[in-house]
Amino acid sequence: MPATNRKFTLAARPEGAARRSDFAFIEDAVPSPAEGEVLLRNILFSIDPYQRNLMGNGSSEWPVIDIGAPMGGPTVAVIEESRHPGFATGNYVQSWSGWQDYAISDGSDLRKLDPDTAPLPTALGPLGLTGFTAWYGMTNVHEFKAGGTLVITGAAGSVGSMAVQLGKRRGLRVVGVAGGKDKVAYLKDTLGVDAAIDYKAEDFEEQVRRALPEGIDALFENVGGPIFPVLMEHFNTNAKMVICGTISDYSETEPPAGPNYLPRLISLIHYRFVDIKAFATPFVMHLMPEFLDEMTPLVVNGEITYREDLLEGFDSLPNTFMTLFDGTHSGKKLIVKA
Amino acid sequence: MPATNRKFTLAARPEGAARRSDFAFIEDAVPSPAEGEVLLRNILFSIDPYQRNLMGNGSSEWPVIDIGAPMGGPTVAVIEESRHPGFATGNYVQSWSGWQDYAISDGSDLRKLDPDTAPLPTALGPLGLTGFTAWYGMTNVHEFKAGGTLVITGAAGSVGSMAVQLGKRRGLRVVGVAGGKDKVAYLKDTLGVDAAIDYKAEDFEEQVRRALPEGIDALFENVGGPIFPVLMEHFNTNAKMVICGTISDYSETEPPAGPNYLPRLISLIHYRFVDIKAFATPFVMHLMPEFLDEMTPLVVNGEITYREDLLEGFDSLPNTFMTLFDGTHSGKKLIVKA
Repeated sequence: MPATNRKFTLAARPEGAARRSDFAFIEDAVPSPAEGEVLLRNILFSIDPYQRNLMGNGSSEWPVIDIGAPMGGPTVAVIEESRHPGFATGNYVQSWSGWQDYAISDGSDLRKLDPDTAPLPTALGPLGLTGFTAWYGMTNVHEFKAGGTLVITGAAGSVGSMAVQLGKRRGLRVVGVAGGKDKVAYLKDTLGVDAAIDYKAEDFEEQVRRALPEGIDALFENVGGPIFPVLMEHFNTNAKMVICGTISDYSETEPPAGPNYLPRLISLIHYRFVDIKAFATPFVMHLMPEFLDEMTPLVVNGEITYREDLLEGFDSLPNTFMTLFDGTHSGKKLIVKA
Repeated sequence: MPATNRKFTLAARPEGAARRSDFAFIEDAVPSPAEGEVLLRNILFSIDPYQRNLMGNGSSEWPVIDIGAPMGGPTVAVIEESRHPGFATGNYVQSWSGWQDYAISDGSDLRKLDPDTAPLPTALGPLGLTGFTAWYGMTNVHEFKAGGTLVITGAAGSVGSMAVQLGKRRGLRVVGVAGGKDKVAYLKDTLGVDAAIDYKAEDFEEQVRRALPEGIDALFENVGGPIFPVLMEHFNTNAKMVICGTISDYSETEPPAGPNYLPRLISLIHYRFVDIKAFATPFVMHLMPEFLDEMTPLVVNGEITYREDLLEGFDSLPNTFMTLFDGTHSGKKLIVKA
């Protein structure tokens, strides 16, 4: 056991995109658990776009972490020492302790993991918050009617690709939007979308028209940015939209240059009764068991597929995180091994 | 009885704001009712912003009237000849027969009016579609919690002023937004708002801040345009918005110049769970009796106040209509007497 606890703490609230200098690397003493607590050692760190929100100064209205506190986020950890009757040394758990080697927990934020049921990294991906976000957005926000056309943005990403597969399983015609030929090929060849749209292609708007001869009944919006004003013109009357993430806007501090599409969106809500809803997983975590009951066998049996990149090294956490926002990210779920 | 039936018909679909040349004046023969029909003579014509939608080429997705057909809209009419058992010559009715002297009806679109219960023009204003729009938007779309702050745009207008009074009766703190000192004085002195905001004032944004120390719990949006991006920043978590009209956008064909506030609105829906709903009165007319039961005594007894301008002359219909959109309209309900 090393003598120190490595941490990346929040050094500054970013203006716009996060930079390396917004994180400080420090080494602390390893803490000791009190009665009723455990000492956990993080072995896998989840890298997700919403973590930008935790840093503050973005679009989010959610609580942000304090300057000097460890960067937040889900991890997989092993119990190093237990003074809690519910956990034994060597147990695996999913924790929310963020970018540090060691943390203390009273157990209330821990979910026990069985590595014989599903590989540990899935607890951060298809069987973690990533999969839960897709599942909740597809299941508990709107009633999506079988046979309708569901459009999913960021469809090749870790949340979007889950949503695509859930949409197909629920009998919808699924149209995936992604950027670049590799992602489009993944949508068609692996995920089996009914149509794919490459938003980076020059004929993007023409692709949208071709893919949506009967308009949009449901939109799983996972991206934000300039794609949406093109898509929204295809909303059918009573179209449903669920906002699961607007990654391209997480770092925005000022409204972008025009044209101003807000009046048009209001008109579409007004005249086509488009119903836009959002949710936040922190408020609905009580449905996690229901999600795991449905999804665990599907993921374990390979009926639902996923992609992940396991990257080496605690030191790489800030730079790996920043790749989510610089356009180089492949769409695979990013996990860093300590 | 004149030998002819004067009509203003739709000559062209406007690009942007309606112009006089979009209407044609024609004179037809007076029609004759068949068995089961009535001949009605329009005596009062309602002038409303949503009629722009009926002309086509605007934001609306609703059915538009055909070129060559009479301009649509509600009227008060008297039965000139009846071959229908439910109507007698001399009966007063509210009809939807639009800008023509005479029309035939099978009675299914007529609402009988008793001039001894309420003045006939009220059937086009506080006890007509105008009042119904305000009542429905305040009653049947969201649950507005007493004690919360309700903002109403276009608050001095015919729909907005009804909504203000209903909001006060329902125990809300009502903040009215209107343009110019006269309208603001009307809001404060006659309608009794808790705070008024003049969107034409130089210190508009400061007025918004002063009027909303505890943010917006509910927004009755009746106007559209550049006011909304300022207001939306004050949405509280779980704020409710009902879209009852976006008059400033009815004539838009292209999105206006930026900045682009759409991403910010999406963020607010995402992070503050703002719930935006719209409705269209044509689909909810079955609630008209419930509305009339509640509102008729309040209007007749003067507990709910309203303003109207009764203008003379069938010939003035197009020009009167156009004043709704040229910035000269006082906010009073406009009614034209044949």
